[in-house]
Amino acid sequence: MTKQDLIDCHDRIKPFIHITPVLTSRLINEMIGAQLFFKCENFQRMGAFKMRGAANAIMQLTAEQRKNGVVTHSSGNFAQALSLAAQGLGVKAYIVMPNTAPQVKKDAVRGYGGMVIECEPTLEAREHESKNIEDQYGATFIHPSNDDQVILGQGTACMELLEAQPGLDYVATPVGGGGLIAGTALAVHYFGTNCRTIGGEPLATDDAYRSLLSGQIETNTTTNTIADGLKTQLGDRNFPIIQKHVEKIIRVTEKEIIASMRIIWERLKIVCEPSSAVAFAAVLNQKGKFNEKKIGIIISGGNVDLSHLPF
Amino acid sequence: MTKQDLIDCHDRIKPFIHITPVLTSRLINEMIGAQLFFKCENFQRMGAFKMRGAANAIMQLTAEQRKNGVVTHSSGNFAQALSLAAQGLGVKAYIVMPNTAPQVKKDAVRGYGGMVIECEPTLEAREHESKNIEDQYGATFIHPSNDDQVILGQGTACMELLEAQPGLDYVATPVGGGGLIAGTALAVHYFGTNCRTIGGEPLATDDAYRSLLSGQIETNTTTNTIADGLKTQLGDRNFPIIQKHVEKIIRVTEKEIIASMRIIWERLKIVCEPSSAVAFAAVLNQKGKFNEKKIGIIISGGNVDLSHLPF
Repeated sequence: MTKQDLIDCHDRIKPFIHITPVLTSRLINEMIGAQLFFKCENFQRMGAFKMRGAANAIMQLTAEQRKNGVVTHSSGNFAQALSLAAQGLGVKAYIVMPNTAPQVKKDAVRGYGGMVIECEPTLEAREHESKNIEDQYGATFIHPSNDDQVILGQGTACMELLEAQPGLDYVATPVGGGGLIAGTALAVHYFGTNCRTIGGEPLATDDAYRSLLSGQIETNTTTNTIADGLKTQLGDRNFPIIQKHVEKIIRVTEKEIIASMRIIWERLKIVCEPSSAVAFAAVLNQKGKFNEKKIGIIISGGNVDLSHLPF
Repeated sequence: MTKQDLIDCHDRIKPFIHITPVLTSRLINEMIGAQLFFKCENFQRMGAFKMRGAANAIMQLTAEQRKNGVVTHSSGNFAQALSLAAQGLGVKAYIVMPNTAPQVKKDAVRGYGGMVIECEPTLEAREHESKNIEDQYGATFIHPSNDDQVILGQGTACMELLEAQPGLDYVATPVGGGGLIAGTALAVHYFGTNCRTIGGEPLATDDAYRSLLSGQIETNTTTNTIADGLKTQLGDRNFPIIQKHVEKIIRVTEKEIIASMRIIWERLKIVCEPSSAVAFAAVLNQKGKFNEKKIGIIISGGNVDLSHLPF
């Protein structure tokens, strides 16, 4: 994936996304002893950066492929993103979701024009159901994070951030399936100047941290984190990019995630998901390392259930 | 107060305030059947529009007056605003607060350089204590809302909104002490084109609604509302402006305030105070009236205790 691939991708998806704002807080800067720049993808369409990758992946399909629709399995933001992007492009989206997914998430997908197909809440069941839809309708499967076109799309948030703040020393993102951090690392590599990519990961689902140590893709044995967007596993498309271009992954506790989320809500006055707070938590965790630096933080999304807040 | 007074005021305070963003939501627009433009004073310095009036009031003092400091009584946003504005201008701020005020509010005032003077939680006690400080230090008393310079300062948020969105049919604000709506009504009068000012007020503290009906300043008998910034009374400086320039005040229930606040948090992904949601609640309450109109909404502030949310 080249610099030109990223530029072309950004130009391609621009009509379907918002150029999101970058916020700062004097009090947060004083707290860290650094300058932080928060790229607010919680203000993105459907409330998360996932819109970028979904739009790019569908736009790279042939006319024939588009006619037959797209399919993914997700109960999170990618389900909504693929539905909304597909709707905007006149493409049918089949979304395989576990029958245990909250009604509000199914409704959100349907609200964006996606067709919900329910299955048993196991990996086997959802892969089987996705395969069924591919076979039955000729729909193209699009993975939420382990897909080159999705990775490129997610990288465009960091391109915008570096355009707004060219002098960044670091860009930090949360790490879940690895699509956001891989795209970000490519953007930092091609558009940054002495800039490095840092990941934040919950201790409970630290597959990326352990994979970097061992040199092969490790799996999570639990998904016991409040950061519900970060329970997914690294893939073989994004892992090599992370190995090559990410300086470090910093692990944080659940307590640190909640405290960081609270600081973002209180100081920046924005609503972000627990997953979004993990990158800031990583910087807070090792603030000595970041002293007097300029740090970009990708606030990944803002879809949170206000009835079940951790504070 | 003239058009030129507002222009001069805005020029004067610009170095001390943020030009806050205007946000929109396609889903909220569909819900109302109108175009809404939210002026986000929750992103203002210290988290509320009050910074504008406080800065202007202090800047209008003579060098001699500034030397002796300023005093106000407030346990809300104006306490923090006067402290921060005074700090930026090298002026001492004495803040009279009830001894029942939460520790976090006293700490916030001190964090902005204000000196907290505690008193019994009665109107008499706080007025007595303020008078003491005026006498003892020669400090100038600045009222949180019933002061011409404060009213002008608060009007500058609407000036910015009308500059960003010149074609607005309505601008809606919450009504508490009356400083924000009076300043807004002046800005709408001088800078709007066929634009009208609307107020939102909690049913529990509907002194402004009743005052407009009776033609004289009415008082509240209860302060039983979640909109803690709107418990204060109209004054003799702002009431005549409201009589002359405000089209209508719409009253809303506590349930409507909470539901509106939730919509703002969920759809705009921003943290706002219950008081801030009252203007949007008013538009939602009478949405037929606003069909296909362009409506500006002043989101007044974002200082909220995340441990005590109504949802």
